[in-house]
Amino acid sequence: MSENGQDSKIEKLVIIGSGPAGWTAALYASRAQLEPLCVIGVPKQDPGPVLPGGQLMLTTDVENYPGFPEGIAGPEMMQLFQKQAERFGARVMNDDVKTVKFNPSHTEPHVLETASGKTIRAHAVIIATGATANWLGLENELRLATTGGGVSACAVCDGALPMFRDNPVAVVGGGDTAMEEGHHLSKFASKVYVIHRRDELRASKVMQERTLGKGNVEMVWNSTVVDVLDKKDPASGADVIRAVVLEDTVTNERRELEVSGLFVAIGHTPATKFLRDSGLEFDQAGYIDLKKRGSTTNIPGVFAAGDVADARYRQAVTAAGMGCQAALDAEHWLGEHALV
Amino acid sequence: MSENGQDSKIEKLVIIGSGPAGWTAALYASRAQLEPLCVIGVPKQDPGPVLPGGQLMLTTDVENYPGFPEGIAGPEMMQLFQKQAERFGARVMNDDVKTVKFNPSHTEPHVLETASGKTIRAHAVIIATGATANWLGLENELRLATTGGGVSACAVCDGALPMFRDNPVAVVGGGDTAMEEGHHLSKFASKVYVIHRRDELRASKVMQERTLGKGNVEMVWNSTVVDVLDKKDPASGADVIRAVVLEDTVTNERRELEVSGLFVAIGHTPATKFLRDSGLEFDQAGYIDLKKRGSTTNIPGVFAAGDVADARYRQAVTAAGMGCQAALDAEHWLGEHALV
Repeated sequence: MSENGQDSKIEKLVIIGSGPAGWTAALYASRAQLEPLCVIGVPKQDPGPVLPGGQLMLTTDVENYPGFPEGIAGPEMMQLFQKQAERFGARVMNDDVKTVKFNPSHTEPHVLETASGKTIRAHAVIIATGATANWLGLENELRLATTGGGVSACAVCDGALPMFRDNPVAVVGGGDTAMEEGHHLSKFASKVYVIHRRDELRASKVMQERTLGKGNVEMVWNSTVVDVLDKKDPASGADVIRAVVLEDTVTNERRELEVSGLFVAIGHTPATKFLRDSGLEFDQAGYIDLKKRGSTTNIPGVFAAGDVADARYRQAVTAAGMGCQAALDAEHWLGEHALV
Repeated sequence: MSENGQDSKIEKLVIIGSGPAGWTAALYASRAQLEPLCVIGVPKQDPGPVLPGGQLMLTTDVENYPGFPEGIAGPEMMQLFQKQAERFGARVMNDDVKTVKFNPSHTEPHVLETASGKTIRAHAVIIATGATANWLGLENELRLATTGGGVSACAVCDGALPMFRDNPVAVVGGGDTAMEEGHHLSKFASKVYVIHRRDELRASKVMQERTLGKGNVEMVWNSTVVDVLDKKDPASGADVIRAVVLEDTVTNERRELEVSGLFVAIGHTPATKFLRDSGLEFDQAGYIDLKKRGSTTNIPGVFAAGDVADARYRQAVTAAGMGCQAALDAEHWLGEHALV
């Protein structure tokens, strides 16, 4: 089958992805002597600013991962995760998985092809490629999001930061997530503007009432954000948001809205494009569909963990917990089929 | 109803338990401005060495909680968790919940009575009281378990520690867990003795074959461990296990078996005794029965997280992930019913 001698080796376990789920799976799998191979790139054909390390690479200060009372920078946290997995023998491959061929029979290994042309054969695979927030695509948006400048795609993660307290903030979106984010932010911000391009919301009635019933939440209908304006923060010297430019979708008129925060809540996209023809089952929103509690998918020997299979919680610690589950499930499955 | 003015206050959220699940729930809930009240004792009528802080208080070195590449002592880790939750406003009550009266209607609050006689009323409750390993009840057993002396109730947690590598170890038990632990340990230890009081195993056939098929696993039938013998470790000066004393259940003969580790795998007991008449649903093994994915129980406004609802993974990071889920579920539920 293969022209390359190396290809004939069958890995016990390959882990695709390098966020909290991937590294935690690698930690548990390496401690269980499965010598996992971690392919840490993410498929380039998937949208968004996907990086090795996952969404936390875009986060300055993580305050809600338990164990770090003073907070920790996202990239530093991912370095600690990687170091810990490598300490127990996890092997790292700087490559992206481009296509997969899963074998439902479990008598034959699964086959993965990477961007650089390598073929990997593996008895078990854990998919932990995560998801990416959908962004508006504006010039200052991503730059301010990655430098702690007040732009974020996660109110639960960032809403409690001092910079938003008792200041006006904006949420962009019209679905349940936008309502959730608005509701969460209404506890901290002096004012929450929910900016929506249409004149009605997609969000469920109960979510609308709950959020719009807050005295400090105001809808801005028929409007899109067309620019993010920044200023130098006098204390830190860093660039921070000062306003958004709104365009009325009916009149095309533009105006500035002063805010200390912009929360983009127009959904997430799980990094599953490379799995499209794999036979794997997805839920309605495109996330990997897990069976029962745990990390099992519809294909024997294929497990999933983290945001790629979780549209609901999407936190570092929930992803890490799922990574642990996937490694323990993979260990159990490999043993059950006498593959280790 | 109450003779005490304080009792008339209705808490938004009470969290019972103070292991990884409880503190993570407290962290997320306090960041969401729910001002959670954390009742950190565990019910005294439940069995085992239950302590504020949970099972990790019995652990010397935690190597598998992601974020700490060099490992961290269990009690120190729980201090960090508590400090982080308190930083965001979690309130701590040093008391045990003795009885609960849950109100399925959600128009009336749930009512908790504590050991010291206090009455707490709360809209939402998260149960994170954990579980305790069942022990043999021998004199040296718990002492060596709490001081890193080579006695453990969790091979996945402790099996990879250097003291067990290439040394003989013993597992006590005859169920699936004992087989799992034996299989896991066979990767590290020179020899794994599985000690069982009967002449056949309760474990499933597939688990038996998988574990006993390992060349270095040996069954010791019809035997109980009646004593744990220790010695001073020449390097560290600490007391460590050197042998177990076995008694043959047929002949009553006793003999010493030299081992560097004893893994007690005779099950866990979730700390749910105080919930017996609460109306809460339990699974066959006595764990709180969760609905779908997430932390929802059969009673509106009552959530569960961590080992009290998880017989399968039982890791610090999975418990922490579940604690986060419970806090987010509670926040969502409270908002949905206009209780915050």
